[in-house]
Amino acid sequence: MLLRQLFDSTSSTYSYLLADQGEAVLIDPVKDKLDDYLRLLRELDLKLILAIDTHTHADHITALGELRSATACRSGFGTQSGSQCASFTFTDGQALTFGQRQLIAWHTPGHTDDSYCFLLPAAGNEAAQLFSGDTLLIRGSGRTDFQNGDSRAQWASLQRLLALPGNTVVWPGHDYRGWTRSSIAEEAAHNPRLQVADVEAYVQLMDNLKLPNPKLMDVAVPANRACGQG
Amino acid sequence: MLLRQLFDSTSSTYSYLLADQGEAVLIDPVKDKLDDYLRLLRELDLKLILAIDTHTHADHITALGELRSATACRSGFGTQSGSQCASFTFTDGQALTFGQRQLIAWHTPGHTDDSYCFLLPAAGNEAAQLFSGDTLLIRGSGRTDFQNGDSRAQWASLQRLLALPGNTVVWPGHDYRGWTRSSIAEEAAHNPRLQVADVEAYVQLMDNLKLPNPKLMDVAVPANRACGQG
Repeated sequence: MLLRQLFDSTSSTYSYLLADQGEAVLIDPVKDKLDDYLRLLRELDLKLILAIDTHTHADHITALGELRSATACRSGFGTQSGSQCASFTFTDGQALTFGQRQLIAWHTPGHTDDSYCFLLPAAGNEAAQLFSGDTLLIRGSGRTDFQNGDSRAQWASLQRLLALPGNTVVWPGHDYRGWTRSSIAEEAAHNPRLQVADVEAYVQLMDNLKLPNPKLMDVAVPANRACGQG
Repeated sequence: MLLRQLFDSTSSTYSYLLADQGEAVLIDPVKDKLDDYLRLLRELDLKLILAIDTHTHADHITALGELRSATACRSGFGTQSGSQCASFTFTDGQALTFGQRQLIAWHTPGHTDDSYCFLLPAAGNEAAQLFSGDTLLIRGSGRTDFQNGDSRAQWASLQRLLALPGNTVVWPGHDYRGWTRSSIAEEAAHNPRLQVADVEAYVQLMDNLKLPNPKLMDVAVPANRACGQG
């Protein structure tokens, strides 16, 4: 199996290319990077069959629409997005197949109500891999103060992720410090947001972050509701 | 074995943390990131025993000196650097041990005369890993127009790297496009600089790049000759 992490420095977004037996999936692709994705797919001789977003992003514009136009891939958002432009929507527990492998969609609301993680189950000597979107970040979690964000729901989503085996690799949707990966055990022990006493303390912590809105929010959210082609 | 890629967005530098049996190595650490490294080492319960640079950098200041001051690690440069401040210098073929694993230093002059790659030989199911510094970049190679750069020497160094097994993972010293890893087979097939007919064509290509000097060059090179503590 092939796994490539790709970084968009403008929005500090990580995108992921996964492939098995020549069939590829892109998670959270960024529109500005379209040519790079097409080049990499061509050079690695991969057929893109799926392009999926972990949620409706507020900080960058998705490449889902452009990828569907440029390749034969199907594009997918979580069903809670209400997307009208995607090829399909997925729900909690749905398996997304590429080659002989499957990603399992986990509905993990909190950052947004349409937030998902994707779990690639363990296989052979390879630990499970969690593409955690903006739900679980390295030593952080996605803000919950807009787009139907809900810190109480996010706490429940995070508890669900923490029940995964400790060696599960965590591949986040962003990192602003240049860290690239973590694990469930590492986040359970060292993520400051997971050290609070209970859900009430978590809600209080998240409600007091008082972050500025993302620069691109007023542009990105409507554009992403049109699969990046609005 | 643990392997973490870390990114400095200011200089687009990749640093690498490797560890085995609690003993850690940092390759190409960046001075501005010192606190992050110390935090990560503490959280992962690792003892830093080595901090090594692939060459005397011109675009960022090394953390080698500060890491040696803050931990019990030994700091190392290639012997061609003429370093007076490092704990030791390494030469071609030298094994650098951490835990039960070894990095093998490969002298690969061209970008600078003190350029090295570090090879982590294959073990079990794990392919060999090459930390390729600025010698081999993803779809590129390090410029050769200053600091005793030599495009003819670099061609020979690249040929040596290309003789490694095709599945050897390539971890570069930089990437400006957000790509994070490659392999020897992939670079052999798709790196434009490796598609030229012969050494003469390579020298001509490199001599005609006409790149501006790195912004930090006049500061970084003397600072790095003092292990980042000048």
